[in-house]
Amino acid sequence: MEGEPTLRLRVFDLNCWAIRYLSKRRQERVRLIGDTLRREGFDLVLLQEVWSEQDYSDLKVKLAGCYPFSHYFRSGVIGSGLCVFSRFPILDTLLYQYSLNGYPYMLQHGDWFGGKSVGLVIMKISGIIFNVYITHLHAEYCRDKDAYLPHRLVQAWELAQFIRHTSKAADVVLLGGDLNMHPEDVGIRLLRGWTGLRDAFAEATRFEGCKNGCTLVPDNCFTDKSELLPFPLGIRIDYILYKAISSFTVKCEELKTTTGPAPGMDIPFSDHEAVMATLHIQRQGQPVGATLGTADLALADVVTEARTEVGVGLRAARRQRYSSGRMAVLALLLLLLQAVAALGTLAGLGAEQPFPKLSFCLLAFLALGVLALATGLHLFHTMEVKMLHGTEDQMWMALRALQERPSEG
Amino acid sequence: MEGEPTLRLRVFDLNCWAIRYLSKRRQERVRLIGDTLRREGFDLVLLQEVWSEQDYSDLKVKLAGCYPFSHYFRSGVIGSGLCVFSRFPILDTLLYQYSLNGYPYMLQHGDWFGGKSVGLVIMKISGIIFNVYITHLHAEYCRDKDAYLPHRLVQAWELAQFIRHTSKAADVVLLGGDLNMHPEDVGIRLLRGWTGLRDAFAEATRFEGCKNGCTLVPDNCFTDKSELLPFPLGIRIDYILYKAISSFTVKCEELKTTTGPAPGMDIPFSDHEAVMATLHIQRQGQPVGATLGTADLALADVVTEARTEVGVGLRAARRQRYSSGRMAVLALLLLLLQAVAALGTLAGLGAEQPFPKLSFCLLAFLALGVLALATGLHLFHTMEVKMLHGTEDQMWMALRALQERPSEG
Repeated sequence: MEGEPTLRLRVFDLNCWAIRYLSKRRQERVRLIGDTLRREGFDLVLLQEVWSEQDYSDLKVKLAGCYPFSHYFRSGVIGSGLCVFSRFPILDTLLYQYSLNGYPYMLQHGDWFGGKSVGLVIMKISGIIFNVYITHLHAEYCRDKDAYLPHRLVQAWELAQFIRHTSKAADVVLLGGDLNMHPEDVGIRLLRGWTGLRDAFAEATRFEGCKNGCTLVPDNCFTDKSELLPFPLGIRIDYILYKAISSFTVKCEELKTTTGPAPGMDIPFSDHEAVMATLHIQRQGQPVGATLGTADLALADVVTEARTEVGVGLRAARRQRYSSGRMAVLALLLLLLQAVAALGTLAGLGAEQPFPKLSFCLLAFLALGVLALATGLHLFHTMEVKMLHGTEDQMWMALRALQERPSEG
Repeated sequence: MEGEPTLRLRVFDLNCWAIRYLSKRRQERVRLIGDTLRREGFDLVLLQEVWSEQDYSDLKVKLAGCYPFSHYFRSGVIGSGLCVFSRFPILDTLLYQYSLNGYPYMLQHGDWFGGKSVGLVIMKISGIIFNVYITHLHAEYCRDKDAYLPHRLVQAWELAQFIRHTSKAADVVLLGGDLNMHPEDVGIRLLRGWTGLRDAFAEATRFEGCKNGCTLVPDNCFTDKSELLPFPLGIRIDYILYKAISSFTVKCEELKTTTGPAPGMDIPFSDHEAVMATLHIQRQGQPVGATLGTADLALADVVTEARTEVGVGLRAARRQRYSSGRMAVLALLLLLLQAVAALGTLAGLGAEQPFPKLSFCLLAFLALGVLALATGLHLFHTMEVKMLHGTEDQMWMALRALQERPSEG
């Protein structure tokens, strides 16, 4: 079967950092990205952080000639930021919004407003069915004390589950995006172990670009140098992952990253480096085996580790649910107390009005404000508890399945 | 192949109306449901509106003997209300939360707090892979002027897409739940047309129960009689739908509904009637064909109709987004004006204080409250616009695919 025809697919992945009013030299960079994509003629382009629909429309017009097919995934307040451009027809799409994605009150970390999701586009190229996934997980703002780790792990788990459940009819699965996790992080190991996806960087025959495949590097003029101090070479958080499901093999012939400034320009495309993979897909005589028995043990360890972290998040969320609920009850009690006092005064029980009117009103409004806020927080953390608990349960079910597998074989 | 072994599966579906503190005689009814399920020994039980996790745990304990496998889907503030009990092992689960589900400020219609979702459980029975879906769509509070129709249509669409994308490896697909739609409604036609699911009531060889298979009937002592005035026989909104995907056929041998009071009791299980189907699954020599070309035209009409309704919802959501945004801007302006006036007084520009202190403070607090509320509403309706717009786009893509199909063939 070695003589079977092969398909070569060139994939481009980039976190564009195109936040209207906030990202530096945004329009100039989006133009530059569009020009490069048109000139280079990739087969498939996966972009994240295209937050403005206008930027997407501009790119769509510019790229209509070489990438006639495209899709923008709408979600959240300002969108998912995810879009796909393709040389081949897009047959179908589906969006899955992660159940947890940070906190709406953490305005300085705008992740909640982005409605983080995973987008799926289905394509058929030379008779091969491709399930292409694009995603962007919650950012890591502080590696030492990462308050968002449980949320990011829930996202990694939901991403893995979504890929597993929707890719059963696919021949080849591709995932591109900014996963906001280092290659050895538990979330990446969970995702790779649970889906069987392989890392294009680790598998590439040829590599060219930033050392260790890093995609957030000090050489990029837009990166925050202080954040990268513990990592002098930079970090790798943008990935192209792949696997063949049915009787195909996928190999990564070449992987490239940009290295700061775009070729022949003085500025980079973005604060992230682009990842470019050339994949080589060939039909094989027999299906490639699924995850092996020996790998199951390692996978069970990863799931256990992830489940522990989710449990830590669950306990924190329960504490926050409790304290916001207690705050709401206290505010309600204060309001009731004030109402009783006011009614007492009206009924002429007290000879004179006991409090200055202004302070009394201010206090009532304050109590009302605290009540509203604390109730909102309580509802939010209740949802958070539900989702963390649900994920913990699902992971437990996965562990049981993993442990039972050898005895079945 | 007529001689192939067959599988007979008995399925029970019920909206349990088990809202803590609100549903009448809840604990008594949950006990009754548990007793009946234990006595009758179904193969698969799909329950909705089990809002209290305690009720689920009680049922789980009671049913451990005859239904050793179960799953509760957590989501939203008070849960999804969805749970499954099964005689056969549950291999895997996945939850998909609908992107739209009413409005948090419609407290009297609590749907938003329920986190409406579709749950998937995967089972293997006698070597046949079952994808079982359970769901509960947004309620219809006023049929003549149904403000939630666009949201329910988005849910029906997402449900159909989720089923299509996750059932590729299944042999048999089952869907049970309270769809809150009459059999001829556009959402049901969309769901059935787009997935190819068949209605157990329409296909049943034998039927026994309420006339027309109604599941919300005046004979039930818990139903609101005034709501059912236009429908003297009741309405049918709870369904069991099914289809075979690979080389199997599914037939509905018998369909039953309860008819008000539970057998031998003075009260019904719930305000809804239970739906019980006996399905007959047989292996066939060749795969059953997918949707036919002639059906595509009718399906295109349904998708067009649904898309029009989603468009109506999109325009309404855009109006609400605009008016809440305008309100927020006005409140902000008022606050700024007050700040200027207060600063002016402090700086001694005005000879005397121009307003009574109390009214001034009250006005400021009012403006602040309106600003917070209007901003929240604006964010919410922005998300609503995004999701309606995204669904409209997806439906357009589906229409294009439907129209292109004949030319491909």
